[in-house]
Amino acid sequence: MAQAEFDSQAFRQALGSFTTGVTIITATAPDGTPVGLTANSFNSVSLDPPMVLWSLAKTSLSVAAFSEAEHWNVHVLSQHQQELSNKFAAKGEDKFNDTNLEAGISSAPLIADCSARFQCRNMVTHDGGDHLIFIGEVLGFDHQALPPLVFQQGQYAMTARKPWAAVNLSSEPTAPQCSYNEDLLGYLLGRSHFQMLYRMRKVLDEQALEDSHFFALSVLNIQQNLSLEQLNTHLDYTGHSVNLEDMAFLEKQDLICQKSEDNYQLTTAGRETSLHHIAQAKVIEEELITELGAGDVMALKLLLKRLIHQTDPGLPDLWSTEDKSA
Amino acid sequence: MAQAEFDSQAFRQALGSFTTGVTIITATAPDGTPVGLTANSFNSVSLDPPMVLWSLAKTSLSVAAFSEAEHWNVHVLSQHQQELSNKFAAKGEDKFNDTNLEAGISSAPLIADCSARFQCRNMVTHDGGDHLIFIGEVLGFDHQALPPLVFQQGQYAMTARKPWAAVNLSSEPTAPQCSYNEDLLGYLLGRSHFQMLYRMRKVLDEQALEDSHFFALSVLNIQQNLSLEQLNTHLDYTGHSVNLEDMAFLEKQDLICQKSEDNYQLTTAGRETSLHHIAQAKVIEEELITELGAGDVMALKLLLKRLIHQTDPGLPDLWSTEDKSA
Repeated sequence: MAQAEFDSQAFRQALGSFTTGVTIITATAPDGTPVGLTANSFNSVSLDPPMVLWSLAKTSLSVAAFSEAEHWNVHVLSQHQQELSNKFAAKGEDKFNDTNLEAGISSAPLIADCSARFQCRNMVTHDGGDHLIFIGEVLGFDHQALPPLVFQQGQYAMTARKPWAAVNLSSEPTAPQCSYNEDLLGYLLGRSHFQMLYRMRKVLDEQALEDSHFFALSVLNIQQNLSLEQLNTHLDYTGHSVNLEDMAFLEKQDLICQKSEDNYQLTTAGRETSLHHIAQAKVIEEELITELGAGDVMALKLLLKRLIHQTDPGLPDLWSTEDKSA
Repeated sequence: MAQAEFDSQAFRQALGSFTTGVTIITATAPDGTPVGLTANSFNSVSLDPPMVLWSLAKTSLSVAAFSEAEHWNVHVLSQHQQELSNKFAAKGEDKFNDTNLEAGISSAPLIADCSARFQCRNMVTHDGGDHLIFIGEVLGFDHQALPPLVFQQGQYAMTARKPWAAVNLSSEPTAPQCSYNEDLLGYLLGRSHFQMLYRMRKVLDEQALEDSHFFALSVLNIQQNLSLEQLNTHLDYTGHSVNLEDMAFLEKQDLICQKSEDNYQLTTAGRETSLHHIAQAKVIEEELITELGAGDVMALKLLLKRLIHQTDPGLPDLWSTEDKSA
């Protein structure tokens, strides 16, 4: 770990290792103009009396407004407010257009739908080099169970919380290095997938549907009028496939029909069945959101999408409207 | 969003919505005693001159030492330093025992293996209610590409970074609500699993191994001497199973043998094959770490383990040494 040269960019980068939330801080200038900006320099100071602080660049156009303001509000942004964060990070005068505001203690604008809000009295400012440090007394606050927006190394992030109890799948100490063990990503993905599918299986078993049938119905739910070959093109990467026997079974169950020879689509009953499957998958997902937390499930989905992007072997786009009936 | 009553616990909870990194701050007392504590009240102040700040409770035993110190160091902790964070958050005099220290600019202890470090001159302190605000000039800093430890709502967390480019799997706008769409967790898990397995398939194809064979060999790699029924007990949740025909195929390939009737184990070649599979799975994982980032893959594994915990239908512990040859 060699010491970096003391240049401003390297310093910023090192500071970026310290993860922060993202806040918007607002006030009303003496002339009545609302001002607001995105800041991640916020932090708590004191519990009793309740005090918080944040820093503002002395070159900021809003320095005068904030310095003269009697009050300012801190909004800890939720994951849903990333666009708002970008809006208030940019220069512009229409920041408060289309921003949902509520009545607060002071005249400082109070933005709705945040993870937390602190309505403050502007107590004192201290010199902080090229910044001014604002310290405020918290007059009022509230918070909601909305996953907070996070900033790290110059980009937005989400959090995956680590519960206090360690997560060990096996009752045994870690298996030897050279063997399959519970820390192998491929194993974790497989087990997660199969356990989720296991929760679906009761529903599938009611209609004696195998995994390959379930996958085939799902594809036909999104794209109608596929040949057997086209259908299997979409299934190929799963290692599953359907053959004429499977299709005959699904036809006999009145779940699919042929519009013309080798051109399959869902029947009304088949569509209802597939929608029932989706509803069940959504129930399972809702259960998990309750169990793991909404923010954690959001983070998991984000990471899976990034993994899918990286490992995509060039799959045909299932949702593409092109070549549907090619 | 009703305004919370102004009690200290609710205030703490609201503050917890603001995500932070975790730091350890160290100094040497005038009598030469090293002091150190865990703090998340750190933040940047100024780029030029480089300045940072943090707050310390006036009731802290270390107030005198830090107030009188000419220097202090801020260590932004990595994910690997959670225990160190706990150690420095507790009271105790042996905090620096077994802590890996390095030589720094000042006499303040400099801890090794952090995400970032800031060696500071103690410039000025300001009153902050029940805390003192310490402002320091940064004399030196360094940082490493180690995933930082994160704190949110009173617990440790990891981050899943959101790259600037939006992650959309389909080239089409979001599919209709009632249909399968790319945001369904079950779909994302299945596709992730299958795409990871797809990267394995070339290796499996070389030996004409099907998924069920691969899974069976993996189980026998961890637990030897299983009957066909025991083997299938472990495979059951995957929807895959092996039959006598499969076992005969694997025996013919010299990958498994029977120690006695209906008691299967890997042959030397079978073990080598399975180890080759693991090596390949690890190569795929290493590629992903490069592509997605080490911290993001750690966060993904954490979330998958939590999901597996929650959705476990009561699977037999594959790594248990009990009942191995029952």
